[in-house]
Amino acid sequence: MNNQNFIQLSHGGGGLETNQLIQQLFFRYFGNDILNRNEDAATLSFSGQVAMTTDSFTVSPLFFTGGNIGTLAIAGTCNDLAMVGAKPQYLSCSFMIEEGLPYSELENVVSAMSETMKQTESLIVCGDTKVVPKGAVDKLFINTTGVGEIQQANISAHQIQSGDVILVSRDIGRHGACILAARESLRLEQPIASDCAVLWPVVEALLEQKVELHAMRDATRGGLAAVLNEWCQSSGVQMELQESSIPVDDSVRGLCELFGFEPYDLANEGSFVLAVPESHAEKTLKVLHQFHPEAALIGQVSSGTTHRPILHSPWGSRRYLDFPAGELLPRIC
Amino acid sequence: MNNQNFIQLSHGGGGLETNQLIQQLFFRYFGNDILNRNEDAATLSFSGQVAMTTDSFTVSPLFFTGGNIGTLAIAGTCNDLAMVGAKPQYLSCSFMIEEGLPYSELENVVSAMSETMKQTESLIVCGDTKVVPKGAVDKLFINTTGVGEIQQANISAHQIQSGDVILVSRDIGRHGACILAARESLRLEQPIASDCAVLWPVVEALLEQKVELHAMRDATRGGLAAVLNEWCQSSGVQMELQESSIPVDDSVRGLCELFGFEPYDLANEGSFVLAVPESHAEKTLKVLHQFHPEAALIGQVSSGTTHRPILHSPWGSRRYLDFPAGELLPRIC
Repeated sequence: MNNQNFIQLSHGGGGLETNQLIQQLFFRYFGNDILNRNEDAATLSFSGQVAMTTDSFTVSPLFFTGGNIGTLAIAGTCNDLAMVGAKPQYLSCSFMIEEGLPYSELENVVSAMSETMKQTESLIVCGDTKVVPKGAVDKLFINTTGVGEIQQANISAHQIQSGDVILVSRDIGRHGACILAARESLRLEQPIASDCAVLWPVVEALLEQKVELHAMRDATRGGLAAVLNEWCQSSGVQMELQESSIPVDDSVRGLCELFGFEPYDLANEGSFVLAVPESHAEKTLKVLHQFHPEAALIGQVSSGTTHRPILHSPWGSRRYLDFPAGELLPRIC
Repeated sequence: MNNQNFIQLSHGGGGLETNQLIQQLFFRYFGNDILNRNEDAATLSFSGQVAMTTDSFTVSPLFFTGGNIGTLAIAGTCNDLAMVGAKPQYLSCSFMIEEGLPYSELENVVSAMSETMKQTESLIVCGDTKVVPKGAVDKLFINTTGVGEIQQANISAHQIQSGDVILVSRDIGRHGACILAARESLRLEQPIASDCAVLWPVVEALLEQKVELHAMRDATRGGLAAVLNEWCQSSGVQMELQESSIPVDDSVRGLCELFGFEPYDLANEGSFVLAVPESHAEKTLKVLHQFHPEAALIGQVSSGTTHRPILHSPWGSRRYLDFPAGELLPRIC
């Protein structure tokens, strides 16, 4: 970088400096045979059906307890593939950078992305870099788009059946709570770490154990509440959920009480929801517990006809778990 | 949109309003069987090798003579696929929207994208929507990532050989000049229209005529100068270019003189450069002329060893066509 310590407009101009940034930063951390060919488009080979997904990341702050925008960009896109039973294989990566971003911050993000990718054996095969004048974007946005071969077909929000059990892979609400705490500059005794993680290893273990997966979804924006509402609509089913079975860490619950949020509405970035036949409940939990002791069975699909999830309190009362609405926390991912 | 005339943070929250925006705007214009399944990832089938490419678009202003950020996003990504001989088939599309963007502007962009896609038979199969608070992004950024089956292999910046001829598909510099004029609020007698266009129909015609394509590249950021320099480096060749043969419209030339730019450095969004064997020159030009009368043979690959492109003036003088450097026009695409 020739002692230039800040990203400049010329790094995105498509000329000499862009070339240097690509070679000296992106290729150094992401380099592989496909990317290094440096063509207009990467060349890939597939056998079987392929899943494709895209996500742009605009999180603020860029760095938070448990991760940063880069780990989020890799995990988020890999997880969307894993949720349809696809192995994350190839990613594109596009950086939109504000002029003046410290080079060291960009390098920290890129290096974290490279580390996170190792958990999936995925490769970045093509990329794009834009630098915009000061004020045109807040520091850094990243888009990652991923493709990968589907290892088990028909895992879908439309496949949920009456009698299926609903599980979560770990305690919920951590990512939303972590960003909220960072945004409000809260000094907590124990900082809340984001759950940001790549879920492919868990999904791979579930596939190896031949768990009959009807549906999986990572509970990102909109949290558990959005996933369950979408599932009820897509599959035309009703769900009965035991509020006391839904794992929420005390620190997350405390923050929710302080700010008037429900943990079910908070974003997650390394927690997912599953629907499997009741007969596979035990096997599923056993696999999930290998990764997180907080994994839990939280409810069951019923034959009711409201097509909404219903929360049952420990005291016998019932209420709808509503679709999150209104201004949720912006720039969470 | 319930009479809400501006995009609000809630449209990106992942809850009810996000769902409504997706259904009522994106699915209405982009809808197809794959997208409408609304899963975490789209399911695709391929036979043969697949090309993948990504681009983020940050152009300012959003609307310009001859196109807008949406037409650019579709053309740009489809063109990168076409340049490696791949048919643009499936696109992802991610919107990063500033709170307060008029809904009508977003709809105009989305509707233009839908129109542009018709020229390629490509489909948007997955998407993402982020809304960020005022000031965190300037109006609207779009990422499109594309995949498609490769129809002819080995079209590559590494395949250029001594003796190959270099052609351009039409006059160059229009997109850069158009944005420059818009940015400077120039009142030209005849506004300069961007060349923004989908190149797949031209490439398909070249493939049908069995033109032996060694390399193709759309001359976007960095313009013709960047492409030719990269080609010389990648293939280890030298090029002799006839300056008088390079087609530049008078309006573009005039603007360049006014602002001290070289037309070779200006971005294009619907013009590409080709390297083919000399024996295929005539056939290539014949196809190109069906689409643009300004298409021209501009030079030839020589056995020289400098690995740089050399411009020959009509008066017999020679100079290197340098890699563009420094702060070129930002937010051109």
